[in-house]
Amino acid sequence: MKELDRNAPVGVFDSGVGGLTVAREIMRQIPEERIIYFGDTARVPYGSKSKDTIVRYSRQIIRFLRSKGVKAIVIACNTASAHALETVQKESDIPIIGVINAGARAAVQATVNGRIGVIGTVGTIGSGIYTEVMQQMRPGVRVIGKSCPLFVPLVEEGLLHDSVTDEIASRYLAELKGKYIDTLVLGCTHYPLLRSTLRRLMGDDVTLVNPAYETAIELRELLKANGLNREMPAPDGEEKYQFFVSDLAEKFTDFATSILPNEVKETKKINIEEY
Amino acid sequence: MKELDRNAPVGVFDSGVGGLTVAREIMRQIPEERIIYFGDTARVPYGSKSKDTIVRYSRQIIRFLRSKGVKAIVIACNTASAHALETVQKESDIPIIGVINAGARAAVQATVNGRIGVIGTVGTIGSGIYTEVMQQMRPGVRVIGKSCPLFVPLVEEGLLHDSVTDEIASRYLAELKGKYIDTLVLGCTHYPLLRSTLRRLMGDDVTLVNPAYETAIELRELLKANGLNREMPAPDGEEKYQFFVSDLAEKFTDFATSILPNEVKETKKINIEEY
Repeated sequence: MKELDRNAPVGVFDSGVGGLTVAREIMRQIPEERIIYFGDTARVPYGSKSKDTIVRYSRQIIRFLRSKGVKAIVIACNTASAHALETVQKESDIPIIGVINAGARAAVQATVNGRIGVIGTVGTIGSGIYTEVMQQMRPGVRVIGKSCPLFVPLVEEGLLHDSVTDEIASRYLAELKGKYIDTLVLGCTHYPLLRSTLRRLMGDDVTLVNPAYETAIELRELLKANGLNREMPAPDGEEKYQFFVSDLAEKFTDFATSILPNEVKETKKINIEEY
Repeated sequence: MKELDRNAPVGVFDSGVGGLTVAREIMRQIPEERIIYFGDTARVPYGSKSKDTIVRYSRQIIRFLRSKGVKAIVIACNTASAHALETVQKESDIPIIGVINAGARAAVQATVNGRIGVIGTVGTIGSGIYTEVMQQMRPGVRVIGKSCPLFVPLVEEGLLHDSVTDEIASRYLAELKGKYIDTLVLGCTHYPLLRSTLRRLMGDDVTLVNPAYETAIELRELLKANGLNREMPAPDGEEKYQFFVSDLAEKFTDFATSILPNEVKETKKINIEEY
């Protein structure tokens, strides 16, 4: 690892707006840190795309974030964490973490009966990564994955509390309910926004794990362990949190303002294909 | 216009699989022509993205299709036709057509009461292009647009005949029904796959216009008028119809085989960002 500036910002990226749920947790858990957020809104979604494509996109985004001088990077997207984390970690001389390890760890700690459900995109579930990681952490645990491709479009349409979302969710969850899981990982950064629907359908006996929350804690520990945590809080203001996207869709700013504690005043568009 | 080879293939492109409904109509209406199809599956969907981004993507794809020697290009995507057609036509020395003109013409010919509905993506409806084109063709016509962002994900999940699709469709169409339209343009290449649902909800008195069908006829006339139509049918076989995508998702081949008259044996992946 090269000598890094502990006052440099943390880079956070996602295919679009979903990773803002991770940025929000970082803002809450480590309010002293600066964040450079990138949402790949020109190429969103990642969930249905192949590993090769996701690795190429992740490399471009990491080059962009490095050009902004970040000291560490959080891949705030389950699909990109599943497909690209291992590859880009090997290529990098700054710390990079994804959202899967922290979520998996919380789930294997939470389960009592050893039966864990994971919901996510086709890419995340198809990769089998949650199963692999959780079985390494706690051999013998049973992991049941279920892809829920309509959740992202439904969330992006704002149908968070709606009969259609209820109907689709009950279809997706029926299989998991039949397997008597006691823990459910929300393996896509959009899904915490469906938390109340998922809670109602799964019942109070199932623990819902939000990897965004766990990842913010992991990041805090990682920065400390590497002497990379800020000693003085970053000054408030526009420069503290910067937002970049690959497509200037109004939706990003609207969504960001609805999710984050403060209004997002400015979002800059860059051409990610040049990186 | 430069001297073109009338035996060269026609280029057809879309953000993904939707444009296959246009390719299918071309295969039916002009079976003698060869087709090079490109689906931008690494960056799909286009419907929610900005004009700038769609123009950049369309230029890259046109450069790719030109590298394959096509004699004419069909933008088989309403969003790309809405945002990029005018720009890329000016830059091109081969004929390029979109799907909007042909659909608009059929609609203004079909309407009796002069009230036409158009359904499409946020990009297509937001551009106002159907209204503009139809009012030029027939001043005084009233055009009511409605974006239907969940139709594409529902179609891609295969929920063509499903209570959830019915519910979403009846919400989207309620506004149009209240405006007493007698003609409805299916302004997104995925929507013909929802035809039976739309037909049932709108009733038999509303004419449904499928721009894919009209575009194939326009292409046939355009090729003839420019002396670019093939004189001898292209030989059957793999080379007659070639398929390229930017992401090798299995979904493309599966979807293509389900839509097209013949099985799609091979789909080649290219890196579209290099064009």
